[in-house]
Amino acid sequence: MFGRSSVLAKGSLLRYFSSSSLSGVLKIGDILRQTRTFSNDDVGQYSKLSHDVNPLHFDSESARAAGFEDRLVHGLLVASLFPWIISSHFPGAIYVSQSLHFRSPVYVGDEIVGEVKAISIKQSKKRYIAKLSTKCFKNGELLVLDGEAMAILPTLALEHDSRRS
Amino acid sequence: MFGRSSVLAKGSLLRYFSSSSLSGVLKIGDILRQTRTFSNDDVGQYSKLSHDVNPLHFDSESARAAGFEDRLVHGLLVASLFPWIISSHFPGAIYVSQSLHFRSPVYVGDEIVGEVKAISIKQSKKRYIAKLSTKCFKNGELLVLDGEAMAILPTLALEHDSRRS
Repeated sequence: MFGRSSVLAKGSLLRYFSSSSLSGVLKIGDILRQTRTFSNDDVGQYSKLSHDVNPLHFDSESARAAGFEDRLVHGLLVASLFPWIISSHFPGAIYVSQSLHFRSPVYVGDEIVGEVKAISIKQSKKRYIAKLSTKCFKNGELLVLDGEAMAILPTLALEHDSRRS
Repeated sequence: MFGRSSVLAKGSLLRYFSSSSLSGVLKIGDILRQTRTFSNDDVGQYSKLSHDVNPLHFDSESARAAGFEDRLVHGLLVASLFPWIISSHFPGAIYVSQSLHFRSPVYVGDEIVGEVKAISIKQSKKRYIAKLSTKCFKNGELLVLDGEAMAILPTLALEHDSRRS
């Protein structure tokens, strides 16, 4: 149940919301989170869809020879946490830009927490241009991916993610 | 047959290679290309895999209300052309960073050409750190996505993409 892992935090004070109670308006400093663990099946499906058959994703020997512990989850699959977080809370959001720095390897089975933090918000006509800090952590603290995103939001009102899987 | 769309270009002189003859060593200025047209099925599968159910990808009405002609292909799915191009020519390549600026919408059925151009190449021990310009065009000329990538390549020898689909 991904909805349950949605967390809206401000500063050091975490404000937890259940799927049914998540509400409010996005403010600078707010952090939206989602948690996901990528499976072998996810990596296989993504490879098929993206045509990316880099042996580092399939062959443990190749991955170890390149200095990793095991096969890697595709970087852009890990990065998909960001538009998921943004669009689940702001349906109709338009992605303007995203920078990605892959800091540490993500392996199948790692629990990854994605964080999207509002850095600046500017109103433009009836929409909002949000600059967002985007980070993924594993094991609660190790930074595996970071960067920044810009998105056009149709509203600042937060919608909870009602998806279940 | 994606292999056939592989093109290695240098400067304004395009050097076309068939799957069986693509060979050589990557040099600054070289451009690697792949062509792909995203289908409804691709968008559906990617949504399921990424959990991104933004209505702009599914609901023509929502997309038109937001100023688009029709439903959009997910930005990170379009961006997946870059690691595909890199890893198909350099199996074992490690993705270090990627910046993405979404310039124009990509719709289902648009033929997208992805380009990866070598900007700088630096040797580091037995590997190579390549800075790459990454662009996607539609209709042969409209820039839809651009940015830069850094990748660690195990070799500069180009491998042709033998995949078929």
